[in-house]
Amino acid sequence: MATGIIKNPIEVVVFGSGNVGKHLISEFKKYPDKIRLKGVWTRTFSNLPRDIPIITDLKKIPPADIYILALKDDVIENFSKNLSHSEVLTVHTSGVLPLDKLHVKRKGYFYPLQSFRKEKKEYDWKEIPVFIQAENEKDLNLLENLAKILTPKVYRLKSGQKQMMHVAAVFANNFSNLMFTIAHDLMQENKLPFDLLLPLIKETVERLENFSPRDSQTGPARRKDTDTIVRHMALLENSGKHREAEIYKILTDYLLKLYR
Amino acid sequence: MATGIIKNPIEVVVFGSGNVGKHLISEFKKYPDKIRLKGVWTRTFSNLPRDIPIITDLKKIPPADIYILALKDDVIENFSKNLSHSEVLTVHTSGVLPLDKLHVKRKGYFYPLQSFRKEKKEYDWKEIPVFIQAENEKDLNLLENLAKILTPKVYRLKSGQKQMMHVAAVFANNFSNLMFTIAHDLMQENKLPFDLLLPLIKETVERLENFSPRDSQTGPARRKDTDTIVRHMALLENSGKHREAEIYKILTDYLLKLYR
Repeated sequence: MATGIIKNPIEVVVFGSGNVGKHLISEFKKYPDKIRLKGVWTRTFSNLPRDIPIITDLKKIPPADIYILALKDDVIENFSKNLSHSEVLTVHTSGVLPLDKLHVKRKGYFYPLQSFRKEKKEYDWKEIPVFIQAENEKDLNLLENLAKILTPKVYRLKSGQKQMMHVAAVFANNFSNLMFTIAHDLMQENKLPFDLLLPLIKETVERLENFSPRDSQTGPARRKDTDTIVRHMALLENSGKHREAEIYKILTDYLLKLYR
Repeated sequence: MATGIIKNPIEVVVFGSGNVGKHLISEFKKYPDKIRLKGVWTRTFSNLPRDIPIITDLKKIPPADIYILALKDDVIENFSKNLSHSEVLTVHTSGVLPLDKLHVKRKGYFYPLQSFRKEKKEYDWKEIPVFIQAENEKDLNLLENLAKILTPKVYRLKSGQKQMMHVAAVFANNFSNLMFTIAHDLMQENKLPFDLLLPLIKETVERLENFSPRDSQTGPARRKDTDTIVRHMALLENSGKHREAEIYKILTDYLLKLYR
């Protein structure tokens, strides 16, 4: 396949039908003229549409343009060894894994930045950024052609960029969710439903559409309200919540310095 | 006014036309049969509808059923001294201030749990919880009658409950927003637009409608992926982001213990 020429349809085999695999597969199926899903390798048949060819024997993987390993991070390296003799471009979908963990001839990644969960019926892929990488321009173009069928937001990252973006995603997603968990527990222990905080949380996120988070920061630390800060810390300490008090302190210190 | 009997309309004077005041006033105006806005005391005329009587002279405050001090936390105590001879139920709208900071005869609070900003045109008040407190049942009923015109979510809090709820709100709102700020800066320093993270952030919050944050936690700490954790911390340290690395560590430790 020559650089820049779109092969139509692109032939794909997906390995894995977990959170990422399942949603990739349903999205691929929406574009039968552009993407031919040649099969899915999976150990669980549970949630796949019946018309998708299931592959159980690793010796019978059909040829394709791209093999997509939508597997757990910690099994990808070993699993890739099954494909080490293949000439097919083989990519993982991980935000974390370096390319050299793929023991294949032509390697890359195809990383959709979203926290997928099987229970959710559908995502708006047009909103989801997909990050791609490969070892040469030809493979990159092939991945780009596939990704652009799903979303206009396709990015080629430099290797350092991807790592730091994943750190940023940990703060934006995992750590913000921990803040919600701590809030949830504080509410529950005071016999208040967590739901009361939802309008506030939604408002915080809605602001991000129009303002940078730095500009929309509010709260005791932002307004240098040391009385409240001291009272909150004492309240946490007196309730035996020492680790929450420690987190309160370190985040408040960060904010006080940020808005000094 | 006897307990339980709804006086109609309830007469109100609002002091302050900042973030909270402005939105209270516009909401009150939607129910002219139920709420009579007798005036607004404000030092800035900027953003008020023309048909609201403006009060500038503190000696000419009209009588009403409720005076609402929608002022900054740190001025409420002093300001309330202007009303110390009044027989009118006087409430503040603060999530923080204890009742005894009000130097008035009949005191209470009327605290809508939302992070209001003037720039936003309108809020869905039916979703906003309003917390009320007063010193006797009669005043509480009066506040409850007013609050229930705006939202079905009206709660009477015990004094300890309100303090801890405010701590919870700091985690859910202020600290989660700080996580977005740190993510924003990491993205920007790596020449990546923060917007790329928005679908992920929205998904995190959307899950809260159906799942507890504890159940929907994801990420390296949740899956005990110590390789990634170590790599992320090193990446932050090597970029001179020592305080971000410290926050990464303390939050990751918390998560590792939570899901042990």
